Amino acid sequence: MKIALAQLNYHIGNFEKDTVRIIETIHQAKKAGNDLIIFAELAIGGYPAKDLLRNQTYLNNVEKALHEIAEACCDISCIIGAPIRNQHAEGKRLFNAAVVIADKEIKHLVKKSYLPDYDVFDEYRYFEPNRETSCVTIGDTKIALTICEDLWDDGVDNTYMGDILQELAIEKPDLIVNIAASPFSYTHHQTRLNIMRRAVLKGNAPLIYVNQVGAHTDLIFDGRSFVLDSNGDVVTVLKDFAEHVSSVSFEKGTFALQDEKETYQPNTEIGQIHDALVFGLKEYFEKSGFKKAVLGLSGGLDSAVVAALACEALGADNVLAILLPSRYSSDHSLKDALDLVAKTGCNHEIIPINHMVEAYEESLSGLFSGMEPGLAEENIQARVRATVLMAASNKFGHILLNTSNKSEAAVGYGTLYGDMAGAISVIGDVYKTQAYQLAEYINRKHEIIPRNTIVKPPSAELRPDQKDSDSLPAYELLDSILYHLVEQEKSEEEIIQLGFEEAMVKRVTKLLYGAEFKRFQAPPILRVSPKAFGAGRVIPLVAKYPN
Amino acid sequence: MKIALAQLNYHIGNFEKDTVRIIETIHQAKKAGNDLIIFAELAIGGYPAKDLLRNQTYLNNVEKALHEIAEACCDISCIIGAPIRNQHAEGKRLFNAAVVIADKEIKHLVKKSYLPDYDVFDEYRYFEPNRETSCVTIGDTKIALTICEDLWDDGVDNTYMGDILQELAIEKPDLIVNIAASPFSYTHHQTRLNIMRRAVLKGNAPLIYVNQVGAHTDLIFDGRSFVLDSNGDVVTVLKDFAEHVSSVSFEKGTFALQDEKETYQPNTEIGQIHDALVFGLKEYFEKSGFKKAVLGLSGGLDSAVVAALACEALGADNVLAILLPSRYSSDHSLKDALDLVAKTGCNHEIIPINHMVEAYEESLSGLFSGMEPGLAEENIQARVRATVLMAASNKFGHILLNTSNKSEAAVGYGTLYGDMAGAISVIGDVYKTQAYQLAEYINRKHEIIPRNTIVKPPSAELRPDQKDSDSLPAYELLDSILYHLVEQEKSEEEIIQLGFEEAMVKRVTKLLYGAEFKRFQAPPILRVSPKAFGAGRVIPLVAKYPN
Repeated sequence: MKIALAQLNYHIGNFEKDTVRIIETIHQAKKAGNDLIIFAELAIGGYPAKDLLRNQTYLNNVEKALHEIAEACCDISCIIGAPIRNQHAEGKRLFNAAVVIADKEIKHLVKKSYLPDYDVFDEYRYFEPNRETSCVTIGDTKIALTICEDLWDDGVDNTYMGDILQELAIEKPDLIVNIAASPFSYTHHQTRLNIMRRAVLKGNAPLIYVNQVGAHTDLIFDGRSFVLDSNGDVVTVLKDFAEHVSSVSFEKGTFALQDEKETYQPNTEIGQIHDALVFGLKEYFEKSGFKKAVLGLSGGLDSAVVAALACEALGADNVLAILLPSRYSSDHSLKDALDLVAKTGCNHEIIPINHMVEAYEESLSGLFSGMEPGLAEENIQARVRATVLMAASNKFGHILLNTSNKSEAAVGYGTLYGDMAGAISVIGDVYKTQAYQLAEYINRKHEIIPRNTIVKPPSAELRPDQKDSDSLPAYELLDSILYHLVEQEKSEEEIIQLGFEEAMVKRVTKLLYGAEFKRFQAPPILRVSPKAFGAGRVIPLVAKYPN
Repeated sequence: MKIALAQLNYHIGNFEKDTVRIIETIHQAKKAGNDLIIFAELAIGGYPAKDLLRNQTYLNNVEKALHEIAEACCDISCIIGAPIRNQHAEGKRLFNAAVVIADKEIKHLVKKSYLPDYDVFDEYRYFEPNRETSCVTIGDTKIALTICEDLWDDGVDNTYMGDILQELAIEKPDLIVNIAASPFSYTHHQTRLNIMRRAVLKGNAPLIYVNQVGAHTDLIFDGRSFVLDSNGDVVTVLKDFAEHVSSVSFEKGTFALQDEKETYQPNTEIGQIHDALVFGLKEYFEKSGFKKAVLGLSGGLDSAVVAALACEALGADNVLAILLPSRYSSDHSLKDALDLVAKTGCNHEIIPINHMVEAYEESLSGLFSGMEPGLAEENIQARVRATVLMAASNKFGHILLNTSNKSEAAVGYGTLYGDMAGAISVIGDVYKTQAYQLAEYINRKHEIIPRNTIVKPPSAELRPDQKDSDSLPAYELLDSILYHLVEQEKSEEEIIQLGFEEAMVKRVTKLLYGAEFKRFQAPPILRVSPKAFGAGRVIPLVAKYPN
């Protein structure tokens, strides 16, 4: 049996485009002699479609697409993910299903049993879980057909009742197939391999894993579909951050590669983050139908990294960097920013903000008379910059990129409607310490981020001689505590028990929870870690936080 | 048996404050001769605690509070809602439970079976559903003890498998108790009564329903706990938008009121919306620890309504209205705004924005040279206003109130980081046509909203002689189509079939979906309808929308 793994990039709700490409891919696979082609979870309609799954036209379009795809499946079988209407009187109105098609007919509907409802996942909002399961036979191959979370047993959390794979294993399948829509994080490829290896051993059969590729606003799907032999060893891994269709032959429990052996080697952690951000940004623009980006360039690290990533994703011609110096900007800031412009080749403008800031000071002099300048005045500068950037965005139809990093976003070291503005946050899931690594990675071949931008002490430059270290702990310490609070969801108490200084932990925790209201209004953030700010972390705004 | 219904206002995570009040209430009920006291769902810890339910300190605090509350239950039994750790190896780590306490001991844990995961609800994210159920006996009363959604059977949607109440009814309970955390919408009190009446008839027993009261950012809990006799007729309804503890005696299947008969009469629909908004606003400030609000006052309807509501909720002394006239503001705007200031007695400042706007125009004249003024310049005005308002907010520690209405928010008729700014949106769930009704309601005793503000044609006044009707359909038509799209979640196609003009439906749908990216960054909105923008409506930002 020859099997094609179809790792495609879907566009949520874009049935016209995606259905044609799915059918083309089936035709090509048939021509190349494949007996079976496997697409990802929710390939029809795209993932995550969220409340579009409640729209009847969307669901009608799914059915229409499924019908057209079935018509193409002659002399080839197909496994494809789709949301399928629940025909029973009870339960939620949809199933998250793997549809098995052969001879132009739907032969089986395998429904997802374990519906993830944590972090960025909310499948129980839409889908009814499956309650009974059995293997399906395609040709003479008995397949334990599962959908993503169905096999997600790390041996630690037992989130779901029962054990689907154990039930399926009783039937002694020849092959396990898992179709997935599994988003990227910098730990996730290795985790997936580990978990699917467990599945191979538990299910006592080799495994084919087909993931989506593509990005949808915050969520980036990295692809990296793979095949494991009956020992759980890797037979092949498909490309990361790219569409890839690849075939294996499967005879008597053994795989043979049709194409040349894939020699996929994962990039370093920071390299993967880099690749994910460039891909996520590119996808955001392409799928939104925009070409050009604008951003504020300060001469500091974060905006330099975002500018470099944008130039790589969109082409330097499509990036407009606006330098917005104030009376507090140091000489080196403008110089470093211009240096980056020269090295990337992006477009730039210089618009000093003093004149506009002074206009506010004059207009507000009555209301603020007798009060010392402070945070309000600092924020005016940040908001003037945002207003200029948004004016350029509105005028030219460029998309404003947000340049805040995760450390700042965590502790609220940023101005709402100021430097927190933007349509998409590029490095909002990258801690400051990681942003430095990212800069070095960007410079791996030649210097793009100016050395001086990397080595100088970070500063918001909103008052004379300001340094981040005036208000914040050293970033190494800050990021380390934040990692335990955010990624690890540990309590203050648990982190203190790890050996961190109590006063510092309490200070950082207070800053984190104190900034929930700001993050509520932040742009969507490209997610690259196991726990990003945004939909995956929901904290009430009006509450007393645990301490 | 004498039973107290304890309709209290909880503060999420504020264990110190809430535990003391719960215990005091138990002591008072005991003193008044009650045998049983019933608190709401998740009374311990507050609802919705969201991802705080994943914090170990929070969960330890719940256990500590439950222990202290149990100690108080001597010579009185208690039913109280709390998140309880799942001690089994399998399943999610918590149950949403009703804890039955007597003789200082936990006698029963009744777990919630049906976990809502739609609109603003995401309980499956945290809780494992109950799988077996039986009545509990307190004294000699057999009680079908249920938690909110467990009884939520409207006879139309069959979202959940099985039928909890039918199972319980087999045991022939004397009484049905439902503890709830059921948020307000303008239709919800009547819906609750209807659904609980169905439960009485199906369960063949009278019913006590105890709801929370209080607001938590966007969600407003209206209280209105009630008692239904065995015919499903109302015995008593507790207060709306206020704490209330009330007793009934229950003998041989019949209730007798201890206090004088409650004669609760629900307010009109717009009256309920008014009361909910005033209460929600008051709660937001009190629970956040703020006293004073600032807002921009244009002379138009929306900001006038918000100012009046804020004055009612916080006291006119605590409200600062800033008038921000531009070169396009009409004479009547300033006059109408000052008229409202006089009528409400709030504080005010006048800060003309021309000087600041001109500073932008000068600074941007190079970049924008040769281009016609348009949307970019209109947005600058809105963003200058927001920057001034936020400067005042930062300087004085006042909270900025957002004044956008639901119609504007729906179609994106507003400026991100401009008039869309604010910590909380007061009328973001109130359509423009409802805002007019709200103004008339506010004026029911005497004129607070100036008549001219109500009768003049609405305008954003961002260019000469601008009217809303230049860019938008008439609000009656717009709001009607939006109601079908948003509240009813209908597709374009379904709305056209209702008889609306195709081109108009397509135009409004396109505007709605085209503004998803703006609403993503909008403030939290006080929810008063069955479907508000915010957490209850999740649409992907990068997608092709169904048509």
